[in-house]
Amino acid sequence: MGRVTIRLDDLPLRDDLRGLQPYGAPQAPLPVALNVNENTHPVPREVADDILDAVGRALGEINRYPDREFRELRAAFADYLRHGLVADQIWAANGSNEVLQHVLQAFGGPGRRALGFAPTYSMYPLLTRATGAEWVSGSRGADYTLDAESAVEQISAVDPDIVFLCAPNNPTGTPLSLDVIEAAYEATRGIVIVDEAYFEFAPRTAPSALALLPGRERLLVSRTMSKAFAFAGARVGYLAADPAVIDALRLVRLPYHLSSLTQAAAIAALAHAPVMLQMVDEIIAQRDRISATVEALGYRAYESWTNFVLFSGVDDPGRTWQQLYDRGILVRDIGIPRSLRVSAGTAEETTAFLEALASIDSRA
Amino acid sequence: MGRVTIRLDDLPLRDDLRGLQPYGAPQAPLPVALNVNENTHPVPREVADDILDAVGRALGEINRYPDREFRELRAAFADYLRHGLVADQIWAANGSNEVLQHVLQAFGGPGRRALGFAPTYSMYPLLTRATGAEWVSGSRGADYTLDAESAVEQISAVDPDIVFLCAPNNPTGTPLSLDVIEAAYEATRGIVIVDEAYFEFAPRTAPSALALLPGRERLLVSRTMSKAFAFAGARVGYLAADPAVIDALRLVRLPYHLSSLTQAAAIAALAHAPVMLQMVDEIIAQRDRISATVEALGYRAYESWTNFVLFSGVDDPGRTWQQLYDRGILVRDIGIPRSLRVSAGTAEETTAFLEALASIDSRA
Repeated sequence: MGRVTIRLDDLPLRDDLRGLQPYGAPQAPLPVALNVNENTHPVPREVADDILDAVGRALGEINRYPDREFRELRAAFADYLRHGLVADQIWAANGSNEVLQHVLQAFGGPGRRALGFAPTYSMYPLLTRATGAEWVSGSRGADYTLDAESAVEQISAVDPDIVFLCAPNNPTGTPLSLDVIEAAYEATRGIVIVDEAYFEFAPRTAPSALALLPGRERLLVSRTMSKAFAFAGARVGYLAADPAVIDALRLVRLPYHLSSLTQAAAIAALAHAPVMLQMVDEIIAQRDRISATVEALGYRAYESWTNFVLFSGVDDPGRTWQQLYDRGILVRDIGIPRSLRVSAGTAEETTAFLEALASIDSRA
Repeated sequence: MGRVTIRLDDLPLRDDLRGLQPYGAPQAPLPVALNVNENTHPVPREVADDILDAVGRALGEINRYPDREFRELRAAFADYLRHGLVADQIWAANGSNEVLQHVLQAFGGPGRRALGFAPTYSMYPLLTRATGAEWVSGSRGADYTLDAESAVEQISAVDPDIVFLCAPNNPTGTPLSLDVIEAAYEATRGIVIVDEAYFEFAPRTAPSALALLPGRERLLVSRTMSKAFAFAGARVGYLAADPAVIDALRLVRLPYHLSSLTQAAAIAALAHAPVMLQMVDEIIAQRDRISATVEALGYRAYESWTNFVLFSGVDDPGRTWQQLYDRGILVRDIGIPRSLRVSAGTAEETTAFLEALASIDSRA
């Protein structure tokens, strides 16, 4: 058949989508890809073997719809998260983006408003607007920190239906202390979602917002298997909250949204949590090495509790990004002036990045 | 932690969700489950082995995000569908429900209107309303058929932004001829989506709406691997349309919405399309056996080009449903008066259903 040559604008597209570009970091096949905060360590062989066994069993019944309530997976997440959680308090979806989409479908939508504290995860405004809700971009203080006073002041001014708290924050790496979350919760009548996508890279003694769940039925804590569990390709995000919140999310999810393969793979991976999380210590070591080395090179590294480092003092981020690219290294220009973001890779990848950066004169 | 005992209504839920119940057929572990139009034949062993090999390779890179453009999978769907299609004309998502959700997110939304011809697939209104668009329920003629004149008349009266044509129709099994689709397309300025979820169960000589794609940039044809490919657990739906439509869907999909495992499993299954589709003939034989036998029992079976049969003449569908349930057989009461729907199972399952039905006096 001949290729039709109409353009997107010729279609009856929704008006609010006209002129938009699809979201997404460039997909470039470079030897050292440190741009999307992946865990660059493959899943250990013995874990992969167990996952494959589980997938093989699931294939035996792949002609049947999956368990719509993914009960075994929810129980596995509850076990992993501890804090006395039970399966009724757990939700999951195809990546934490879909978890957040479900939250916005249930509690956002036309006439409602969501607040986040920029710079923060770039999908929050996109997900919010996709449900017809309004996005309000709040602000952070020095070094991208957010304190209780500022959070409460901004929440009071905006009166949001949903508050996003990214803890630690992407793309800056910034920690968020529990007192800010408590104060934000008290200051709003809305949903407070604490996005702990990178929580496993925080210091071991750092408390999770999960500890705040009892008695706070509007508090939601989301996580992902993409980072600490090296499972970005499997698309598994999850959330803990009051069982009534889970009931709300059940109203908006597509039936059978989690495939049997996804459920089987995630359950098997969670059974190996201690092994999976051993990689985390190695990544933390590389992250801290990046911070120390870029500072030694004359840049400014921001405190990070994640698997990446935001550094500033870059004269022309676009040019430095290109120079690193030309050396086979992909980092992220997230649009923060004079700054670039780099994920902590393996020791070898981290060395390749640091040596390439040292060979470039881009200090401002 | 203590279980919090608040109710859903105590949360700041969207007003339009209050009082709703989650969608879904009852999940009951009965020996003979013929309620959700699954393919009850497991995937053949040699195919399952190939799928598992492909998943094993994907697990080696599961720490990386999947190909956001799922290029290899789109090419495989184009090959399978023939009709001169190329990868740029293909879209896919986690089940055809998500494909339809993407269509509605791109072309529906607040202030827009979708039309379907009831009784039809019960997810259409739910998906439509979830994006804030209005659902208009059109009607069908005798025996649930839809002819061109009636379709054009209803489209002209409603002036919809999106027209759903389920071909063949669920839950009635009714064929839809291409002239109706052509006429509907000409009658509307909107998107026409032909849902061919059950197309592989139509007679081999029946033409697909894919043949109508050239020159019709507002025509979309969706399919699923859930039925003919016995892949309901893997959650893979897909769609063919003008490349500009694909660009539109790219604006609303979540980044990385299709996992590496899903992509690998679907590609491997498609490579075995001829083997996978051998089961289809067996299912068609059982379907026709159901139709003939329920007629012999005094019921009325509607013409079906799907893997299920709608039959009427049931005095009290709720009672007959329960009597079948008590005999270990799960069918579907889809709310059509004096009717029940049953999926064609294996020869053994079909026999079990027919014998159970024969033992029940429920003819009206």
